[in-house]
Amino acid sequence: MTTPTLPIRRVGIDTWRESVVFLHRECPVVRAAGFQALAKVKVQANGQTLIAVLNVVDDEAICAPRELGLSEEAFRRLGVAPGHPARIEQAEPPPSIAALHRKIAGERLERDDLRAIVQDIAAGRYSKIELAAFVVATNQFELDRDEVLHLTEAMIVSGQRIDWQREVGAGPVVDKHCIGGIPGNRTSMLVVPIVAAHGMLCPKTSSRAITSPAGTADTMEVLAEVELPMERLKEIVRATHGCLAWGGTADLSPADDILISVERPLAIDSPGQMVASILSKKVAAGATHLVLDIPVGPTAKVRSMASAQRLKRLFEYVATRLGLELDAVITDGRQPIGRGIGPVLEARDVMQVLANEPGAPQDLRQKALRLAGRMIEFDPDVRGGDGYRIARDILESGRALAQMNAIIDAQGRRAEPLAVGRLHFDVTAPADGGVVGVDNLRLARIARLSGAPQVRGAGVDLFVKLGDTVRAGQPLYRVHAQFEADLEFSRRMALDGSGYTLGRVDTAAHENTTGEAS
Amino acid sequence: MTTPTLPIRRVGIDTWRESVVFLHRECPVVRAAGFQALAKVKVQANGQTLIAVLNVVDDEAICAPRELGLSEEAFRRLGVAPGHPARIEQAEPPPSIAALHRKIAGERLERDDLRAIVQDIAAGRYSKIELAAFVVATNQFELDRDEVLHLTEAMIVSGQRIDWQREVGAGPVVDKHCIGGIPGNRTSMLVVPIVAAHGMLCPKTSSRAITSPAGTADTMEVLAEVELPMERLKEIVRATHGCLAWGGTADLSPADDILISVERPLAIDSPGQMVASILSKKVAAGATHLVLDIPVGPTAKVRSMASAQRLKRLFEYVATRLGLELDAVITDGRQPIGRGIGPVLEARDVMQVLANEPGAPQDLRQKALRLAGRMIEFDPDVRGGDGYRIARDILESGRALAQMNAIIDAQGRRAEPLAVGRLHFDVTAPADGGVVGVDNLRLARIARLSGAPQVRGAGVDLFVKLGDTVRAGQPLYRVHAQFEADLEFSRRMALDGSGYTLGRVDTAAHENTTGEAS
Repeated sequence: MTTPTLPIRRVGIDTWRESVVFLHRECPVVRAAGFQALAKVKVQANGQTLIAVLNVVDDEAICAPRELGLSEEAFRRLGVAPGHPARIEQAEPPPSIAALHRKIAGERLERDDLRAIVQDIAAGRYSKIELAAFVVATNQFELDRDEVLHLTEAMIVSGQRIDWQREVGAGPVVDKHCIGGIPGNRTSMLVVPIVAAHGMLCPKTSSRAITSPAGTADTMEVLAEVELPMERLKEIVRATHGCLAWGGTADLSPADDILISVERPLAIDSPGQMVASILSKKVAAGATHLVLDIPVGPTAKVRSMASAQRLKRLFEYVATRLGLELDAVITDGRQPIGRGIGPVLEARDVMQVLANEPGAPQDLRQKALRLAGRMIEFDPDVRGGDGYRIARDILESGRALAQMNAIIDAQGRRAEPLAVGRLHFDVTAPADGGVVGVDNLRLARIARLSGAPQVRGAGVDLFVKLGDTVRAGQPLYRVHAQFEADLEFSRRMALDGSGYTLGRVDTAAHENTTGEAS
Repeated sequence: MTTPTLPIRRVGIDTWRESVVFLHRECPVVRAAGFQALAKVKVQANGQTLIAVLNVVDDEAICAPRELGLSEEAFRRLGVAPGHPARIEQAEPPPSIAALHRKIAGERLERDDLRAIVQDIAAGRYSKIELAAFVVATNQFELDRDEVLHLTEAMIVSGQRIDWQREVGAGPVVDKHCIGGIPGNRTSMLVVPIVAAHGMLCPKTSSRAITSPAGTADTMEVLAEVELPMERLKEIVRATHGCLAWGGTADLSPADDILISVERPLAIDSPGQMVASILSKKVAAGATHLVLDIPVGPTAKVRSMASAQRLKRLFEYVATRLGLELDAVITDGRQPIGRGIGPVLEARDVMQVLANEPGAPQDLRQKALRLAGRMIEFDPDVRGGDGYRIARDILESGRALAQMNAIIDAQGRRAEPLAVGRLHFDVTAPADGGVVGVDNLRLARIARLSGAPQVRGAGVDLFVKLGDTVRAGQPLYRVHAQFEADLEFSRRMALDGSGYTLGRVDTAAHENTTGEAS
């Protein structure tokens, strides 16, 4: 006996990483199998199999009674043309659901359990509800460090893995990553050309912004192509020792992307999940040596030095067992880095630093030199403590700028010039005072409402930083936007709270709070 | 400044308790506000407000760029006509999300926290992902008994509450509930007429089957109308002292229904959630006295006597503090009760018992008398230990049948006769032996695949029970279905495993295992 087939219909709904099957309420298969809404179903067509969640439809314009509708994600995963006959049946739960239930019940999972769960996640066999259950059950109080290690390993093997040493040549493959949360913190675009100019392999694949106003990929895209096929990327790295590309073209740690789709709306980013996410992506991208930036501050992701130290040790534990050399650096995360927040504004800051312009933002320059120095010290021929000086020499000599231009040309230089949004407004100081607080989250939110990162020229340009003194009416920052509605959204948010706290400033402390030790 | 309005469009997708807003990818609002897929959005129209999850659509047949699409649930909740202009903006997180995050982090929640969470859930402000997070975070190892109490209280006040004593008259309002999991366990349809014949108020509102092959409402519907407006229900209870109605017409503990929509696909049913769900529904439905049936067995929900005792104590703790008199009875849950599994077959069993037919299933009769006896002992004029005898007298005298007929007539007797499905097959014993195991879960699954409960006459009819001896080829049970496909689905499942375990039977033990002490 066989179940009847139904022709596939592509239903243009973006269910964001969840495979959804649509069946009409009057579909004979719905009746016969007693399918319930949100049931897990298995679709088979042309030798391909898909596990999806069922949504029942009452409108024939979406899906007729004798059609099998697939959401965009489901359609992409099944990979079979519209009209092709497909069979549907109730799906058995994914094999790893028993392990998920044990984790929900508070048990410790073994390596094989986590491997099975991550495989099912990467294959799209978990529903949003099951993903949420996994994310909550594995939050910070539930995963011990070996579980984090096994989760990371499982995420690495869930996708592709790049072997730069085989592709390009021997020597360490150095990378740099920040755990995030600090607007304007665009150091990658400085450390890559510096370290590549030193002769080390620094092939950086970055993400686009998820909740921030700009990711490195978004910012680099202001200057050059970033969506590059793997073969092009290898040529570029062979020629220039570095790249600044979007990581999404390679299939690196795909389970991570799927988990993020649930962690983001839940605003859960526990240490274990953060470590597994970052290290799996880095190892899959081929890094052998990693400098990790952990900013600490009252509005940063990590808010106390004790938490930063705990997180650092967890990163170190897992990295060591993965064979990844890790140098974790705790940095000042009390305010945004540089002046610009948003792709075009951040790219401007980066190019000012590379060009050694006198007005370039010094905090961005100092932080980039510090991180690049630590990366250069992965070079066995460099003495401990010499990295910063070597990085500074490369920057000041113009070799970093030349290297950046080589990378931009290799990736494909953008023809159009940088341009900030055509509209703007200034947020001014309500009274005389000193800047005693700058809220990273607030400024990121204002920048996003102004249109960043989708609108490349939108964002926030900071005129003053912690420790600066201002007069009443003096501009604190300027918000750029391209569209009226965006300008108004961000203006409303800025009026609600500028993100700046003014107080009596202690001029003696000024030098210490704005300059950063290297 | 105001955001532009968009006309409402009703999108015929049943998202099962989740409010979804559909916007076209090219919709100017999507661009302007930088909405992301799965973002929480706030819709305002005609003075009404709705919180929903955003799905981005690429197909104008579903939702055009200048329309605002609403899923069936969202449309129902907003309650504004299609075409009406609506405004949409990014939603602030529901007020209780901070408390949810504290629970995820392992903290104990206070009464006010749980009140706020349940209010937001009842108002539809939680996404499926957030609901799953709550369900997992409050699983059995995470809720202490006061949290269960506060969750129950919050669920009671989230909806309507019926006051039978004000509506109908003084005296206890007695109810009976089983925690579920035992097929054929249709005792409610026996205890209600018995207890009502004794003169006590027994207004029973039941659910339809969620994952089982029949709920009490589904089975009663074979005989009478069950979807009754509140005013009709009150008249019926005034006239007959009892009713057997579907509880869905009253808005009782609506947060419970929403939580179930996530607990079901996750197959999570922790003690705390079970207690809150059952007791909130019972108190909201106006019960003052409750007999609770906790079946124990290897394929029941509760698998050991120790777990049953723990669960009993949790029920007792919460019920006492809610002012609900509770008598929890631990019963034999090693196999289905009665013979039929499925609405028509179970209704047949019930009517045989009420009619005192000699062939009526004795286990169902005995269990119903035991439970009814405990309910009758809530009557202050009944001596402890006399309940069972009173119940048996009511049943044997025919007064229970007369009372049931009165209730059926009051609710509206169905015109059509009972009819089992037109198709059937028998599952037979593969060898001589004694029945040593009957799998509740397997038989429930076979019954569901045969079409129950949607197909009222579908299901499984058991010919032998634990302790019976069979010869090779002798039928163990018959599966009834109405449709070929259903018959084949259930046949495949039964061939995969009949649910019966045969072994050498110890005839001496026979009497003890099939009969049940009262």
